[in-house]
Amino acid sequence: MIAPVVSIVGTSGSGKTTLLEKVVGELVGKGYSVGTIKHDAHGFELDREGKDSWRHKKAGAKTVVLSSPGKLAVIKDIRGEWPPERIASSFFPDADIVITEGYKKGPFPKIEVIRKANKKKPVCLKDKGLIAIATDTGIKAVNVPVYPLGGHKPIARLIEKIFLRRKSGAGLCLMADGKVVALKPFIDAMLKEAVIGMVKSLKHCSKAREIEIRVKR
Amino acid sequence: MIAPVVSIVGTSGSGKTTLLEKVVGELVGKGYSVGTIKHDAHGFELDREGKDSWRHKKAGAKTVVLSSPGKLAVIKDIRGEWPPERIASSFFPDADIVITEGYKKGPFPKIEVIRKANKKKPVCLKDKGLIAIATDTGIKAVNVPVYPLGGHKPIARLIEKIFLRRKSGAGLCLMADGKVVALKPFIDAMLKEAVIGMVKSLKHCSKAREIEIRVKR
Repeated sequence: MIAPVVSIVGTSGSGKTTLLEKVVGELVGKGYSVGTIKHDAHGFELDREGKDSWRHKKAGAKTVVLSSPGKLAVIKDIRGEWPPERIASSFFPDADIVITEGYKKGPFPKIEVIRKANKKKPVCLKDKGLIAIATDTGIKAVNVPVYPLGGHKPIARLIEKIFLRRKSGAGLCLMADGKVVALKPFIDAMLKEAVIGMVKSLKHCSKAREIEIRVKR
Repeated sequence: MIAPVVSIVGTSGSGKTTLLEKVVGELVGKGYSVGTIKHDAHGFELDREGKDSWRHKKAGAKTVVLSSPGKLAVIKDIRGEWPPERIASSFFPDADIVITEGYKKGPFPKIEVIRKANKKKPVCLKDKGLIAIATDTGIKAVNVPVYPLGGHKPIARLIEKIFLRRKSGAGLCLMADGKVVALKPFIDAMLKEAVIGMVKSLKHCSKAREIEIRVKR
């Protein structure tokens, strides 16, 4: 049930954000619900000094949520780093697809952006997960399609073809201590029916489209 | 299993953030894990124009996550407004207590901050959920304790006494279409054992401290 994850990778300055923006725009235009992850190995600054949320965090709150009509933000201290599949499962339950900027060492299908003016060596050309290249270098690749830097339309079509046509829209996701547990289709279907059967006589549950259970021992 | 929620309320300018900071600092100092919610009925600005996460959002991503070692942020479009218990269940699974700034109309226990110089009428004096007042007005309350504006130490002790001594640290949380389903202790315990029994022979699950299941129909 976790949405498929595709990574846009490349050296710094290659144009990852620009390609991601345009690909996301294409997919949203086709009616898909898209989540994105920006990976920053060096940390990020989001909150500003002196703002209320910053003050909550500074006071020692582990997680701070900003809540308003139509919009929600969460700032959270975590141990180590969460893998994208955990992020997807926790924060993108409704997404059809998740596009990441970064995670060049991750296990996901990748699209590499290579820009001539950037003069840096490509990072994922030998990665088994590479599914496409966007470039202005004239580079040739044997196994994957090569698009121009402005090739967001065919790239969005490729993503649609590979990841979005076999969308089932229903299923089960199981996590144990924050790790996603891979399930065989038979087990997945059995657990799903068992969970639905178990809760269906409870309030709000008989016709609910989404059921979520958390157990703490 | 959802952490108890306490709201710090008051008119604008009364000093809610300052009291919250100090109360959070006290509770964290006592070893509790605290989550906070800042409620803003008028929306908030967190992301800055031109930043990568802002560009992801602008391109149409419904949810954008910023991920780095030790820190995670989520910016999410939602329909309407999420009630604090849904926020607590989704984002504070490990918190001992959740303190909100705002939600004067919410169903939670409340501490009102009343500041003389602010010259505004108190907002929750008649609220049945009021558990304390922090003020410099000399106001007298019959049913709840009154502390000075700098009374964060006794207020933290009050919160500890009322909400944190009966902490069980274990249990089950069930949500249907984003609504928390209230369960009787017997049903809670039965479901919990059923879920543990169902998954315990699966990979990673036998000794997991936390199990999470999501089902989509």
